[in-house]
Amino acid sequence: MRLSRYFLPVLKETPSEAQIVSHRYMLRAGMIKQSSAGIYSWLPLGFKVLRKLENIVHEEQVRAGHVPMLMPTLQSADLWRESGRYDDYGEEMLRITDRHGRDMLYGPTNEEMITDVFRSNVSSYKDLPLTLYHIQWKFRDEVRPRFGVMRGREFLMKDGYTFDLTKDDALHAYNRHLVSYLRTYERMGLQAIPMRADGGPIGGDYTHEFLVLAETGESEVFYDSAVTDLKFGDRDIDFDDKAQCQGILEEFTSKYARTDETHDEALFNAVPEERRRTARGIEVGQIFYFGTKYSEAMGATVQGPDGKPVPVEMGSHGIGVSRLLGAIIEASHDDKGIIWPEGVTPFHVGIVNLKQGDEEADAACEAIEKSIEALGLEPLYDDRKERAGGKFATMDLIGLPWRITVGPRGLKNGVVELTSRRTGESEELSPEAAVQKIAEIYANHRVSGL
Amino acid sequence: MRLSRYFLPVLKETPSEAQIVSHRYMLRAGMIKQSSAGIYSWLPLGFKVLRKLENIVHEEQVRAGHVPMLMPTLQSADLWRESGRYDDYGEEMLRITDRHGRDMLYGPTNEEMITDVFRSNVSSYKDLPLTLYHIQWKFRDEVRPRFGVMRGREFLMKDGYTFDLTKDDALHAYNRHLVSYLRTYERMGLQAIPMRADGGPIGGDYTHEFLVLAETGESEVFYDSAVTDLKFGDRDIDFDDKAQCQGILEEFTSKYARTDETHDEALFNAVPEERRRTARGIEVGQIFYFGTKYSEAMGATVQGPDGKPVPVEMGSHGIGVSRLLGAIIEASHDDKGIIWPEGVTPFHVGIVNLKQGDEEADAACEAIEKSIEALGLEPLYDDRKERAGGKFATMDLIGLPWRITVGPRGLKNGVVELTSRRTGESEELSPEAAVQKIAEIYANHRVSGL
Repeated sequence: MRLSRYFLPVLKETPSEAQIVSHRYMLRAGMIKQSSAGIYSWLPLGFKVLRKLENIVHEEQVRAGHVPMLMPTLQSADLWRESGRYDDYGEEMLRITDRHGRDMLYGPTNEEMITDVFRSNVSSYKDLPLTLYHIQWKFRDEVRPRFGVMRGREFLMKDGYTFDLTKDDALHAYNRHLVSYLRTYERMGLQAIPMRADGGPIGGDYTHEFLVLAETGESEVFYDSAVTDLKFGDRDIDFDDKAQCQGILEEFTSKYARTDETHDEALFNAVPEERRRTARGIEVGQIFYFGTKYSEAMGATVQGPDGKPVPVEMGSHGIGVSRLLGAIIEASHDDKGIIWPEGVTPFHVGIVNLKQGDEEADAACEAIEKSIEALGLEPLYDDRKERAGGKFATMDLIGLPWRITVGPRGLKNGVVELTSRRTGESEELSPEAAVQKIAEIYANHRVSGL
Repeated sequence: MRLSRYFLPVLKETPSEAQIVSHRYMLRAGMIKQSSAGIYSWLPLGFKVLRKLENIVHEEQVRAGHVPMLMPTLQSADLWRESGRYDDYGEEMLRITDRHGRDMLYGPTNEEMITDVFRSNVSSYKDLPLTLYHIQWKFRDEVRPRFGVMRGREFLMKDGYTFDLTKDDALHAYNRHLVSYLRTYERMGLQAIPMRADGGPIGGDYTHEFLVLAETGESEVFYDSAVTDLKFGDRDIDFDDKAQCQGILEEFTSKYARTDETHDEALFNAVPEERRRTARGIEVGQIFYFGTKYSEAMGATVQGPDGKPVPVEMGSHGIGVSRLLGAIIEASHDDKGIIWPEGVTPFHVGIVNLKQGDEEADAACEAIEKSIEALGLEPLYDDRKERAGGKFATMDLIGLPWRITVGPRGLKNGVVELTSRRTGESEELSPEAAVQKIAEIYANHRVSGL
C-alpha cells in the first residue's frame, strides 16, 4: 500500500477526551473515530487490525473443531422472556420497538438465541458434542462508556456455545476452550492469564477470566509470579484428547491467580512471598460452564441413549475482539506510539523513502515494495513528499514492528536500513538481505488477510 | 470437514412460509433459520457462503484501489438531521432511544456518517481521490419482509463512497465501480447486467442497477439480447486508466437494458425485434453519482488548488451481499436443490462413502479427504451411517458442484466416481485422478477462506 493512496489521518495533538494510552494512540494513529458516545467508526488502519484479530480467532476456533455461524444483532424480546432475563437485564440492554410495536433488543449476548437454534434442530444425543460460535457486533448501553474501544457500547465479540450430553463432556468442552484461548492470545502477542472468576448467581468453580497485565486494567489481580513463566508455545494439540486438555488446564490454572472478585487472602499468603504479585489486569475473555440453566428454562432436550429426554449441558465462552485492540496497545507501546506484535500488525513493514522524487531512491523503494508483496506480506510505503522526521514519527506512532529506510546516501553503498520498532536498533543491509530478513521474521506469523 | 461433526440440519419437508425457491432451499439445506420477521441466523453452511461472498467483494474492492474500513451499525440521529433525511426517511428507519434519551437509529445506509468522517479528517484536494467502503449489517424495517434473505430487515451490504475534486474524477470513480462490480459478480458465477436506473429526486443519468435475470425477480426488465453475450472475462485492468474504464462502461451499457422504472418503449422498439427480450430481474447492486448533495448540506469541503474551498464530488456504490445468496440460488438450481457456482461453493467437493464402516472404503475416503485438503481446498465428507440414497439427496440439496462417490465395488476395480452436480454426468477414475481433476477445476476459483 502506498501511503499517498491510503486514508491514515494521524493527529499531532493528543485528544483531550482520551484518558488511557490505547485510546489516545488509537485516535492519534487514525485507527478509530468516535461517532457517538461509546460507538466508533473503525478507520482503515484500525479495521485492518480488527479483521486480523477476527481471523486469528476464527482460525483457532476452527482448529479446535468448533463450528462458525452468525446470529443477527437484533433479537426478539420474547426469547429473553422465556429465560427470564428480559426483565433481569436492566438498563444495559438496548430495548427497541419496531414499526409494528414488537419488542426487540440489540443482543448483548446470545445464550437464548443459540438455545433456540439448538432446540429447533437437534433432538438426539447422537448429534452431540456440538460447539457453535460466532463473531458479531453486540451492544451494551453502558451508563458511562469510556476508554475508547475498551469499554464501548457497540463492540465485537466472539461467543461460543457448547452442547453436551454429560457434565464430563461439557467440562472437556470447557477445557478445549481454555486451550484454544491460550493459543489465540499468544498468537496475538499477548500473555492472557486465566484467573478463577466469580461464578455469579450460578456459582461453581467452572469459570475463568483471561487477564492481560497492564497498568490501566480495570481489575486488581493477585498472582503467583510462576504463572507468567508459562508459555503455550508450539504444542501439538489433539482437541479430542480429554486428558491432554485437562492437563493443560491444570498446568495453567493450578498456580494462584485471581482477581479482586475471587481473591482469597489465606490462599495467596500460601504462595512463597518472593513470588506474590499484585497488579492490574484487563479482561479479554471468559469461559463459563453453566450446566442446564438455559436448556431447562427453554426446553432444549435431546433423547439420551436410553430414549429418555435429557436437558443438554451447556457452556458459553467469549473473547472481546474489539477490546483486544486496546488491550494489545496497553501492553505494547512506548512514548512514541504503538508497538504491534508481529502476529497482528496491520502492515508487516514500513518503507520510508528519505528523498521522494530521487530516481534511484524511488526505484529502490518500489523494488522492495514488490519483493515484500511477492512474499505474500503487506508493506506500507510512505511515498509522500514529507521530511524524514515526519515520516519516522508517523511510522513510530502507528507501530509497524519493522521499518526499511531508503536514501540516496545508503544506496550509493548498496545498503538500506532495517530498524526494529521495539528495540530501536538498526542494521545496514543490502535491499535483498533486508527483504530476506523480513521473510524470516514473518515465517511463523501468518494470518489470512481480508 | 466430516459431516458427523458439522451442524447441517437439513429439512425433508418444504417449509410452508417460503414462497420462492431460494428461500425454500436455504431453509431446507440448513443454511438459515428465521429468528424473527425478516431477521435470520446464518447456520454454518449459510455463513460459509456469506463469508466467501464478503471475501470476494473485499478482494475486488481492494484490487480497484478502494480502502476498507468499518462503520458501526448504530448512528446518532443528529447526523441525519444535518442532511435533512431524519424526517424524510419514513418508517423503514428503525429509530431507537438509548438510556439517556438520545435519538439513535440502526443505519440503513451511511452517506451521512462517511461524510462526517471525511469532513473531520480531509481538508485538501491533495488527499483526493479517495474511496472508502465497508461491509456491514444494516436494517430496514420493511413493512412486509419476505422471500428470506432477499428482502430481510437485517441485511449485509457493501457500501462504498467516493470523494473527488471534480465531476470528471467522480465519474471515473463511478466507472471504476462499474468495472469492479462486473468482475465481482462474474467471479460469483452470476451474470449481473447494468441497467439504467431511476435517479430518484436527484435525477441524472449517473446511476445503474445491476440485475440478475431470474423468474422470481421483483423487477420487470427489458433488454437487447446482445447484452447477455457480453463477458467480462479475465481482462487486465488498470483502474487508474480513465479511458479503459470508460470504454468498459460503454461496452456494457450502450445496448438497451432497463427496468420498468426507466423503460422507454420507443428506444426499446429501435432494437431489432429478434433481440428484444422481456424478463424479470433481481437487483444485486447499484452505483450512484450524486455530486455535492451531502457535501454541501454537511460542509464537506476541501481546499482546491487555488486555495478556495470546494465541496467534494461524491458517489455511493452498493452491493447487497446477503441478498446475493438468494440471487445466486434463484439463478442456479434444479428440482433437487441448489447448484453452487465453483467460485462461491461452501465446500469444494462432497465425498460420499457408500459403505461407512467398510475398512477399505473408509480408508479411501480419508485419503481423498486428506489429498483435497492438501490442495488448500475444503471437502465435505459424509461419514454418517446412512443409506446411499439419503447421502446423495443431501449432497444434491446443498448443491456442492462436485461429488466423489466411493464404494467397495468400485475400489475393487481401483476407481471412484466423480459426478458433476450441474450436468449429473459421472465418470469413473482412480482416486488420484479424481483429486487431480478437482485441483484443475478449482485452479481459477480461489477465494481466501475465513
